[in-house]
Parts: sequence; structure tokens; C-alpha cells
Amino acid sequence: MKSHGYAAHDPKSALVPFDFERREPGPKDVVVGIDFCGICHSDIHQVRDEWGGSIYPMVPGHEIVGHVTAVGAEVTKFKVGDLAAVGVMVDSCRVCENCKAGAEPYCFKGMVPTYNGKTFEGEIVFGGYANNIVCDEAYTFTVSDKLDLAAVAPLLCAGITTYSPLKHWKVGPGSKVGVVGLGGLGHMALKFAHSFGAHVVQFTTSAGKVEDAKKLGADEVVITKDAEAMKAHARSLDFIIDCVSAPHDLNVYLDLLRLNGTLCLVGLPEVPMEVSAFSMVTDRRSLSGSMIGGMAETQEMLDYCAEHGIVSDIELTTVDKLPEAYERVVKGDVKYRFVIDLKSLGK
Amino acid sequence: MKSHGYAAHDPKSALVPFDFERREPGPKDVVVGIDFCGICHSDIHQVRDEWGGSIYPMVPGHEIVGHVTAVGAEVTKFKVGDLAAVGVMVDSCRVCENCKAGAEPYCFKGMVPTYNGKTFEGEIVFGGYANNIVCDEAYTFTVSDKLDLAAVAPLLCAGITTYSPLKHWKVGPGSKVGVVGLGGLGHMALKFAHSFGAHVVQFTTSAGKVEDAKKLGADEVVITKDAEAMKAHARSLDFIIDCVSAPHDLNVYLDLLRLNGTLCLVGLPEVPMEVSAFSMVTDRRSLSGSMIGGMAETQEMLDYCAEHGIVSDIELTTVDKLPEAYERVVKGDVKYRFVIDLKSLGK
Repeated sequence: MKSHGYAAHDPKSALVPFDFERREPGPKDVVVGIDFCGICHSDIHQVRDEWGGSIYPMVPGHEIVGHVTAVGAEVTKFKVGDLAAVGVMVDSCRVCENCKAGAEPYCFKGMVPTYNGKTFEGEIVFGGYANNIVCDEAYTFTVSDKLDLAAVAPLLCAGITTYSPLKHWKVGPGSKVGVVGLGGLGHMALKFAHSFGAHVVQFTTSAGKVEDAKKLGADEVVITKDAEAMKAHARSLDFIIDCVSAPHDLNVYLDLLRLNGTLCLVGLPEVPMEVSAFSMVTDRRSLSGSMIGGMAETQEMLDYCAEHGIVSDIELTTVDKLPEAYERVVKGDVKYRFVIDLKSLGK
Repeated sequence: MKSHGYAAHDPKSALVPFDFERREPGPKDVVVGIDFCGICHSDIHQVRDEWGGSIYPMVPGHEIVGHVTAVGAEVTKFKVGDLAAVGVMVDSCRVCENCKAGAEPYCFKGMVPTYNGKTFEGEIVFGGYANNIVCDEAYTFTVSDKLDLAAVAPLLCAGITTYSPLKHWKVGPGSKVGVVGLGGLGHMALKFAHSFGAHVVQFTTSAGKVEDAKKLGADEVVITKDAEAMKAHARSLDFIIDCVSAPHDLNVYLDLLRLNGTLCLVGLPEVPMEVSAFSMVTDRRSLSGSMIGGMAETQEMLDYCAEHGIVSDIELTTVDKLPEAYERVVKGDVKYRFVIDLKSLGK
């Protein structure tokens, strides 16, 4: 099937228009005409080969929403014209204990990512900076028409990445939760934790983000450089979701956890982080990590968002402005997620 | 009250005989005539001021068993002649949320250690390398006469330190558990995990410990230098209890955990350890730590040991041989805990 998008051909050059082939839709496949695709910081890491092993040409993008334009003969969840979404993964083995447990991102065979990876048959996969995508309906989500479609796109990565650990660690009324970092991930973590009824403390390095954090649902905002303000929360938080991808000192946050508290990493600093055994044994704390969420959980998240009117705060952009958007993401200069309007692709 | 023991007077010199005063027993206090006291590696760290802040003169020892020689007027749990034990802590604030939750080691005011610390009134506390100790009955444990008393002593630190996290993380039938290190802590972790019905994999650097580990209850033993043997356990363990105090690479063990698995540190390396965010987010793993156990849980552990015939494997020693015993502990040359026979104190 003919597709058209924007691709990186090496780690250094700007993305350029790219014509390519996707597989012809099989009986269980859905073809989604892409309306919007979010720009995730991991798109930039992979385009620039900052994690190593990047596959070129690369069509990035894994926060995909659009309309169904064709369905295979055995598809039951979708019909032509329906809204649909594709996230960070497009397949997994479906038979390992993790897949069976609904934890497909942790598939033993390795999940098939939406881009910068290969199918189990060895075919290179291309992402959502494109006019269409073919995806098995089991890895495609339904989307409510109640929400602003462009602002739904980031839910497919930033949304589920924060929703899943908050649910897994049972954040709700009575929880005191810390959110570290107020960017694409952080602002979704803040919205969800607030929506789940927790008392939310937003940690940020930027005094300029205090008012915004409060508007987004923070009960308290702490500027992390303020040692006294940090100390006031010592040994008091049940759960911290750490949304910062740059290397940073975890021990200052670990020390804010109360008995049995967990600090969960959802950002992915490339370099190892130092932790003190004393910070861990005090109050029997845990340092954990979490990756997106399972397929059923992602649908649950999208349904929850439709019910509660939750979307990402976005800035719309166009394919011709990708270099500028990438630079601004790296600088943290966006509130809080760029979403590409794929109409800008033309034809 | 007059007491006699062995004390360190500085970080470098050998321990020497020492006469000192303990408080007169109050209405809720028990006086325990000490029969045996275990030698914990942390005794050596503190005698040598390896963690900093050591208080001299220091009478070490927090694995204490003996017979009650006097009780205060309000004591209900003990009468003269009863067996009794004192562990790592002798007091806590009793009113903070952690104390109220039975998690006294994590007291907000700070637990009062058995030695190398001060009471809330500022009095220096002295440990169990001595002929007696005075302790509030709330921090004193009953001991069954079914067990070898000398071999019970290490249960007060090595025992509860391993029992508590295995219980907290619900190790039992169906669990696959890793024990890292086969020393004072490790051999107790192995005995408990086996007794709880788990499938236990012992990890050790010493080929010479394989047979011993099997005798102590290991279902499998892995020599950690054997990369193939390590790989065979990748993503398969529910829980790992890491009993190694020396700095070591945690990521090789993290990678052995399955979905939602936890690696719990009970050793205390002095230097920070490096962990990779990728090791944590894969399979939503947790790195945790744990310190001894609460008072009720310690009694529960002692009762469990009496019921199941569990004690420490020990080598008896005497006060005059402390320098040799310390050297052998540092070299890991003891199976698996030295216990001082306090009869050797004389008078």
C-alpha cells in the first residue's frame, strides 16, 4: 500500500518528504488515515540515534489518531469512517506470559514498536508522520468523538505512560503524589493524579511553571532548588512519578517518600543513575520504572479520558516546521506537546 | 547498674575489657543476663567508624540472648529465669505513624539503636558484648527453650532482616526467589525462603559454597561469574533478596526479575550504586531496601523459628578471640555467624 510521510535518513539531517510502501491490509488489519500525530521526545532521540541502533530511513511518530479508511474481512471493532488511534507498539507475540497477562509492552519476544523497528517477519515499520498506517485491530484503539482529536494524539504515549503506573500503584483519594517535571509526560501525570483524587505535589525547576501547574491540578508546587520547601515534604509522599528524561539526582526525591513509598521512573535518562542503599532501606522505599501500558489498559485510559474530558495541552504544528518544533521540544519550550496536523502533508 | 563487657575506644585498637554503668531498671524494664551475643558485620563497620559518627567507648552487639535476672514492677511478659532476647533497637517514639503501624525501625524520631547511639534523653547506649542489658519489655522478646540458645542470637539481626522483606513481598509457594550472597544474612534468607515454600536460587561468587547452599535449602545454585547460568534465569525471578554489603553491579540481578519483580537490598554498600533506567522500566521492576523488622514481627519470626526448628549456623567464640573473629568475618571465613559465649567474660 502506497504511503507518504516525512523521514529521517541519517542522525544529522532534517526530516524530508518520503514515499514508501506499507503492507497490504490483511483480514484483521485496519487502515487508518492519519489526521494528527504527536511529537514525542523519544522521536527526537531515535531520529538522532541517541539511544543507538536507529534504523533509517525512519518515519517517526507513535501518537497517532485518524479515521478508518479500510478494514480487513475479519475486523470487528472498526468500520470505515470510525475514529481510531495507534500508539507506541503495533504487535507482540501474544502468547508469552506477559502478553497473556495484558502486559504486552513487556512481551518476552519483544514488542514491535510503531517505528524504528521490525516486524517478526523482518519488515521495517514506519510511524505516524505519514498519511496512513496499517495496523492489526488488536493493536488499534477506538476513540470517542467527544474529545478534540488533535489533543487526543499525545494520550497514546504521554497519556498511557503516566496513567498506567498511577493505576498500578493504586493512586487515588488519600494518596499524596509527587510529579517530577512538568513537560509532555509530567502535565499528563498531573492531570491524571488530580483526576484520580490524589493530593498532588508538582516538582519543577522553573518558577515560571508554578501558576500553570496549579491550573493543571497541582495542590502544591515545589521549586526543587528550594531546599526548605523540599524538606517540608520529607517522608510524606506515597508515590512519585518521575517524568524527567535528563540525568538527575534521584536520592533527593527518594528521601521524600514515606513508608513503602515508590518512585517510578517514566523518563529514560541514557546514563546510569546513582542511588544510595541508605535512601532505599529507610522507610523500605522502592525505585521502579514503567513503560507505556497494555492494550486493554490503553483503551481503558482513552475511555476514561472521554468520560472525564481529559486531553493533552497541545500546540499544533505542520510538517514543514518540524526542525523548529524539535528544537523547542529539546529546550522544553512547548506547552506541553506538539501535534502535527497531517493535512500539512498535502496530496 | 554495674555492667562489664568489651569495648572499642577508638577505630583502630582492639576491643578491651570495660566496666560501665547501665540505667537502674524502671517499672517496665527487664534485666537480661546475657548468655550469647552474635557478631554482626555492622559491629565491625561501627567499631572501625566505617559509616562515620561512631561514639566511643562502644560496647557493640545487637544479637543478644540470655536469661531474665530482674523485672520492673509493671512488667507482664517476663519473670526471672525466663529466656529473653534483645535485637538491633531498644526504643522508638511509639507515637509516630510508623511506630503505630508496627514499623518501629522506621520511627520518625529515629529508633534508638542497641549500641553506638543515644536514648531520647541523651544517654549513651551499650550493646551485648557484656554480662547484662536493661531493656523496656516492649523491645524485649520471648524465646522458646526448644532451640539452641546460642544459635538463636543471630536471628535478632540476620534473622529478622531477611524474614521481614520475604514476608513483606509475600514470598511463598509458587514464588521463584533469588538469594544473593551466602553469608550471615544470606544463609538465613535461604533458610526462610525455603521454609516458606519458594523455589530458591542461591547466587554466590564461590564455587566452594554450592554444596552448602543445597544443604541449606537451595533448589538451584548459580555461580555469578557463569554468564550462561545467569542468562538462564533472565526475566524469571519474582523476588531477589540481595545480602551483599560490598559494592556490586545490581543491573545483572535486576535483569533476572520478571514482570513486577523486586530486588530488595538488605546489605548496605557504603557507596552509591548505579542503576540503569532501562533495567527498571523493562518488566516494571523495583529496587527496594529493608531494615530489620518491627517488634511484633520480630516476635513472630522467633515464634516461627521455634515452630519450624530454624536457627542460624554458628561458630562459638570467646571475648579473647574477638580480633581473630573480626578478621574472619571481614574475609567471609565463617559458617555463617560467630556467636560470643559470654561465659568467657569471667566474673
